[in-house]
Amino acid sequence: MSHLDQVLAKIDADLEVSLNRLFRWLEVPSISTDPAYKDHCRAAGQWLAEELKNIGIDASLRETGGHPAVVAHAKGEGKLRALFYGHYDVQPVDPLDLWDRAPFEPSIITLPDGRKAISARGAADDKGQVLTFVEACRAWKAVTGSLPINITFLVEGAEEDGSKFLPEFIEANKDELKADVALVCDTNMWNQDTPQITSSLRGMVYEEVIVRCADRDLHSGQFGGAARNPIHVLSKIIAAIHDESGRITIKGFYDGVPETPPEVLEQWRGLGLGEAEFLGPIGLKHSAGETDRMLIEQVQSRPTCDVNGIIGGYTGEGTKTVIAAEARCKISFRLVGDQDPEKISANFQAFVRERIPADCSVEFIKHKGSRALALPHDFPALVAARSALRDEWDKDPIVIGSGGSIPVGGDFKRILGLDTLFAGFGLDDDRIHSPNEKYDLKSFHKGTRSWARILAALAE
Amino acid sequence: MSHLDQVLAKIDADLEVSLNRLFRWLEVPSISTDPAYKDHCRAAGQWLAEELKNIGIDASLRETGGHPAVVAHAKGEGKLRALFYGHYDVQPVDPLDLWDRAPFEPSIITLPDGRKAISARGAADDKGQVLTFVEACRAWKAVTGSLPINITFLVEGAEEDGSKFLPEFIEANKDELKADVALVCDTNMWNQDTPQITSSLRGMVYEEVIVRCADRDLHSGQFGGAARNPIHVLSKIIAAIHDESGRITIKGFYDGVPETPPEVLEQWRGLGLGEAEFLGPIGLKHSAGETDRMLIEQVQSRPTCDVNGIIGGYTGEGTKTVIAAEARCKISFRLVGDQDPEKISANFQAFVRERIPADCSVEFIKHKGSRALALPHDFPALVAARSALRDEWDKDPIVIGSGGSIPVGGDFKRILGLDTLFAGFGLDDDRIHSPNEKYDLKSFHKGTRSWARILAALAE
Repeated sequence: MSHLDQVLAKIDADLEVSLNRLFRWLEVPSISTDPAYKDHCRAAGQWLAEELKNIGIDASLRETGGHPAVVAHAKGEGKLRALFYGHYDVQPVDPLDLWDRAPFEPSIITLPDGRKAISARGAADDKGQVLTFVEACRAWKAVTGSLPINITFLVEGAEEDGSKFLPEFIEANKDELKADVALVCDTNMWNQDTPQITSSLRGMVYEEVIVRCADRDLHSGQFGGAARNPIHVLSKIIAAIHDESGRITIKGFYDGVPETPPEVLEQWRGLGLGEAEFLGPIGLKHSAGETDRMLIEQVQSRPTCDVNGIIGGYTGEGTKTVIAAEARCKISFRLVGDQDPEKISANFQAFVRERIPADCSVEFIKHKGSRALALPHDFPALVAARSALRDEWDKDPIVIGSGGSIPVGGDFKRILGLDTLFAGFGLDDDRIHSPNEKYDLKSFHKGTRSWARILAALAE
Repeated sequence: MSHLDQVLAKIDADLEVSLNRLFRWLEVPSISTDPAYKDHCRAAGQWLAEELKNIGIDASLRETGGHPAVVAHAKGEGKLRALFYGHYDVQPVDPLDLWDRAPFEPSIITLPDGRKAISARGAADDKGQVLTFVEACRAWKAVTGSLPINITFLVEGAEEDGSKFLPEFIEANKDELKADVALVCDTNMWNQDTPQITSSLRGMVYEEVIVRCADRDLHSGQFGGAARNPIHVLSKIIAAIHDESGRITIKGFYDGVPETPPEVLEQWRGLGLGEAEFLGPIGLKHSAGETDRMLIEQVQSRPTCDVNGIIGGYTGEGTKTVIAAEARCKISFRLVGDQDPEKISANFQAFVRERIPADCSVEFIKHKGSRALALPHDFPALVAARSALRDEWDKDPIVIGSGGSIPVGGDFKRILGLDTLFAGFGLDDDRIHSPNEKYDLKSFHKGTRSWARILAALAE
């Protein structure tokens, strides 16, 4: 019996105790955004540090500007150094009356289709996922007394609060956190049976635009026809962002957008992600993106722009004949490849300014800017993880981009020069951030086994 | 001394008692929109009915679906029958802390430039204006024992609540309210020294548009690029309504829009209403309407379209990467001449529907529709009133259209076939609907004298 087989057998045998450990962690209401739970956050971090120490890993709670971070170091057999990242904090639980069970009293539930799952706030996001990695390490330690590779743990306590102090912390501990690859377990599987590696993340530019015309709200009977209406101005700007073919018309917007290699496109085509499958569940039939791109490209490999909110004038019941003094919108761009957030922000602002009539004004509030991230398709850790996941799930993992943005990947790249492999076992129906969050038992069990295999594969 | 001169002398002599009467009326808080003031509304109506009876006019309080209306009939010497309309209800007074004086404790104040004014809620809108007419009638009765013409009074108690039951009441009392001309005292002067007759009112179409795409709010990271964004759809629709020259592009929109006669345009040009005068006070410099029209045309004789409100997606603090399920706007059209509100509403809805993508939907909420009104420039009552006002103010009255809409004029036209002459003595700084409403003492005094003259002129 190989070491790996012994490790996997140990994981199977210990599932019950592993679950019990997870339950103890889930009982700690580590809500990072609510100051009332400050001590609970620290307690959740402390719990993890103790568990790591129990495995024989040198762990401590480290102060940041906010909730403390757990940092731990474990020497392994191989030369590779991995930085594992996760978070021990959880989302708030309100509205509490929509929960079927108390959010901090974890239990095993049976879903309507027979699946078993762990019900609790944080079960999937991210305590359950973090523990798949920790329990894999525990099994390796138990069987071999060591780990296949060197691992540094960085498990923070403020991810749900925007990881405000994390970049600063990484910067301050640059040398200590140095590694060859980052591993993050905070993403989803393709479906219940198919693992997924998220090999790219779109970047983001998020801006707020405020158009102001007259210095007060006006009566449209008195001024209508002569006074500039900021809602019209803003609508014209929004309308001009996309052309007829769905392309974004902002100058230089597509600079740095790579073409997906034909063989990858071929694999995507094979996934059969059609409009019916993807849009049907949300009540739509026709994709609205660039007309010359497959739907899967539209949502994963192409940059996009969406107005996320707009408001101006009278929005209550009934009527009011007002010409508003201002109108505002929030607008975000998802970036890919080498698109430069600074340049896109500047070009977008210029695009808007060009369309602001003579005596109106515009104000911008810049909320976010981050570059897209992408692993090369032949990145060694990616290749190793693919084969390990294939072994565990009997299915080739889907290697795919995520439409979303996970800022920590950008921090690792920028500060540590590190590429990140995102592998996680969440499912689309986990209801993270919502009432009745759950994490499939299968995700927890086979997730732990998957990490045991990935650690072995990374050592080769 | 002619009868008219005696009447004018009587008005001058009785100014103090007239003012006292107005104060008694202003003390009644007849706020029509607030059910708590229901009895006060009735009391304000009752007060007027009693005053009319005191003058010897047959008056009574008549039930409607809402607050009662005062209806009165007075036989006069001449053959002409006029229907006088006004309202005894007032706007709410909140925010109360912005008032310098108690809103229902009327007093005479001195404005910074030395003008004397009556301070109270309803002083200008509309109790003070209504009483100019009543006191003119009182003086005629006192001097001659009769009135120059036959007058029916219709003074309602729910104008500030949208006159919801008025059309029904007019319909039900059609024969009783029959007349040759309607007189309304609820409008403004051109400026402190120059009287004004409002000879036309723009009509209105007011619609709410709700565009729906997906059946729920979406995460823009997951669906951005493929899912249709209703804010974009709505913005494109709004952007398409006006062309480069400011013209409205909806099919048939300009059908029935008359050209203003050259001599009237000439008079308007002479008014010197430039961008600096009109737009300067609201912080603008450049008029935004049809590029081939004078500003005064843009706001008075041309039809317009304004989006009065828009909302969709996330509008709170910070960011949320959401693609909204719906976006909505409120949009109003001001109509002139013979523009047909029904046709414009239908063509607008078709215009929107043509721009709704395949699997999105649109809902319309139709709020209002009314035709524009215009007195022929040679309308006898208009000619008579012009000369009477010229005699009183030593200035030719400005005969002009109003950009606003006064629905009662439409009701009189539609139900009674009656043209309406709007003559009033309010000023732009009267702060109607706002804290510190006032009515100039000069408006009250010379307004009463003006009506005395107009009644005489109408009898000729």
